Amino acid sequence: MKVFNEEKVKNTYQMSDAINDIEQLFTDMDGISLAQRTVIPTGEGAKSMLYMPCVHTGRQLGIVKITSITPDNPQNGRPTTQGNIIVTDLETGEHVVSMDGSYLTRLRTGALSGIATKYLSRENATTLGMIGTGGMAYEQLLANIEVRDIERVILFNRTVDKAEDFKARVLAAFPNLSVEVVDDVKKLVEQADIINCQTQSSEPVFDADTVQPGTHINGIGSYRPDMKEIDNRILPKADKVYFDDFEGVKEEAGEIIEANEKGIFKFEDVDGDLKALSLNGQLQRTDDDSITVFKCVGAAYFDLAVALGAYERLIQQ
Amino acid sequence: MKVFNEEKVKNTYQMSDAINDIEQLFTDMDGISLAQRTVIPTGEGAKSMLYMPCVHTGRQLGIVKITSITPDNPQNGRPTTQGNIIVTDLETGEHVVSMDGSYLTRLRTGALSGIATKYLSRENATTLGMIGTGGMAYEQLLANIEVRDIERVILFNRTVDKAEDFKARVLAAFPNLSVEVVDDVKKLVEQADIINCQTQSSEPVFDADTVQPGTHINGIGSYRPDMKEIDNRILPKADKVYFDDFEGVKEEAGEIIEANEKGIFKFEDVDGDLKALSLNGQLQRTDDDSITVFKCVGAAYFDLAVALGAYERLIQQ
Repeated sequence: MKVFNEEKVKNTYQMSDAINDIEQLFTDMDGISLAQRTVIPTGEGAKSMLYMPCVHTGRQLGIVKITSITPDNPQNGRPTTQGNIIVTDLETGEHVVSMDGSYLTRLRTGALSGIATKYLSRENATTLGMIGTGGMAYEQLLANIEVRDIERVILFNRTVDKAEDFKARVLAAFPNLSVEVVDDVKKLVEQADIINCQTQSSEPVFDADTVQPGTHINGIGSYRPDMKEIDNRILPKADKVYFDDFEGVKEEAGEIIEANEKGIFKFEDVDGDLKALSLNGQLQRTDDDSITVFKCVGAAYFDLAVALGAYERLIQQ
Repeated sequence: MKVFNEEKVKNTYQMSDAINDIEQLFTDMDGISLAQRTVIPTGEGAKSMLYMPCVHTGRQLGIVKITSITPDNPQNGRPTTQGNIIVTDLETGEHVVSMDGSYLTRLRTGALSGIATKYLSRENATTLGMIGTGGMAYEQLLANIEVRDIERVILFNRTVDKAEDFKARVLAAFPNLSVEVVDDVKKLVEQADIINCQTQSSEPVFDADTVQPGTHINGIGSYRPDMKEIDNRILPKADKVYFDDFEGVKEEAGEIIEANEKGIFKFEDVDGDLKALSLNGQLQRTDDDSITVFKCVGAAYFDLAVALGAYERLIQQ
């Protein structure tokens, strides 16, 4: 078994690869066998282990993503979520590769937003507003930059210092970007062409009434029924609403579940899933004044797409 | 992540360790969290992937055993079953070790028979009869040798050449043993103090009527409802019958399921599970003429016991 750490995976496999591989997988979903993910509590609160296996019988490769959730970790300078992916060659039955799964998870989550932004946001979008500058934010930025000519980035974070740190990181990598931190989320919402939310908030992080015509919103933060970062009053105002995965969103996305329960926006009102959006391959907004929304919770086959893409590049080196 | 291959695990962790660690785990089962194992078909017939996670919250360590079943492999000189175990340190959330799981699976299966033999067979047992000399057999031999003063080994296998190969392997490792191959299983059954069955037979591999008073039988081969290697007519004749794990045997052991259905031996007639046998810690047979039976299908917590034992030894080196 070969082992590839985060740095090695990062150097080999990037955002454009992830977007391409996920869109490619959408054309070839028949060979995928998923299983329910397994969650085992390992301590107090959210402390747990997650096991997510997924197999591609056509390509004869299988993966399992093993994720530990350790809520106390940040106090000790370690990340809350740590992932590892094991790849099995189904032709030989050999367990061939162990690779870091934390970066790949952030990357695939970014890629999902990237695909949504590509087919839903205005083609002339230049201003990206980012609500939440935590662990998932950087790859969300990379994704939007990949598919739109972003010139300006507006950052909002509950803890301003962290937004300033993130700004410094972005400017170090992309000195041509204009990056600013705002202390009032309204300033961000009113100016952004694309709003990308990546918080674990249990309340809306913006006011739907302040969203401007022509805005596209990606919500990737809420992944439990008690998390509700998107103001779901935006959903009936939206021209198009897409989910990454129907079943996942219905079970996990708190603001969408609440919208369905209250009748604000029923599950069946959704325009499609990310696969349909990608296979259609055309910009899906009616005009430059439409509001569009993408809600994402993740699914094992997205992990499969990036894991197999990274695996195939890593073993060729 | 550190990687330990089969040779490394073999050199570090042996039968006596496995027996000790499994018996030790029986004294400390409260901290174990199991999950249903996940099976994903990956091709024709039995070709599949198995994912078996198990966590010890007390020791703050978790494992997942990832097993590939590739039925065509022997034609290509590769094993049908290949296992890999990933260990996660739950204190830090770090995925710390990947180690070969094939040897550890054979070893723990041997250790289960070893524990049963220790508490069920006559203490003066010297002759071991082995029915089936395939992939699991060697560690079954090691287990019986570990707990009883075996002097003589009688081998029976459907393909005689494989029994002869196995005999050579045993003699190379244990030149003081008397080892013989028989072409009629009756000769084995009539002379053995301990009969250890490790076949995947769908029919009984011995005749219950030929079993002598004082015999102990270990059955480790049948792990599917269609597999029935033990002649279940032996069960009502037995003084003591133990299962490794109640739930597993009820769902997987073909000859026991059939015995229960036909009323030959009901599930509730069992004397106990391996945990009870071990915690009692005394020889459980009434006298030297009693017949005793142990039926084993495996369970994730046995894997946990040996995986954590091997892990702790491997990382200290």
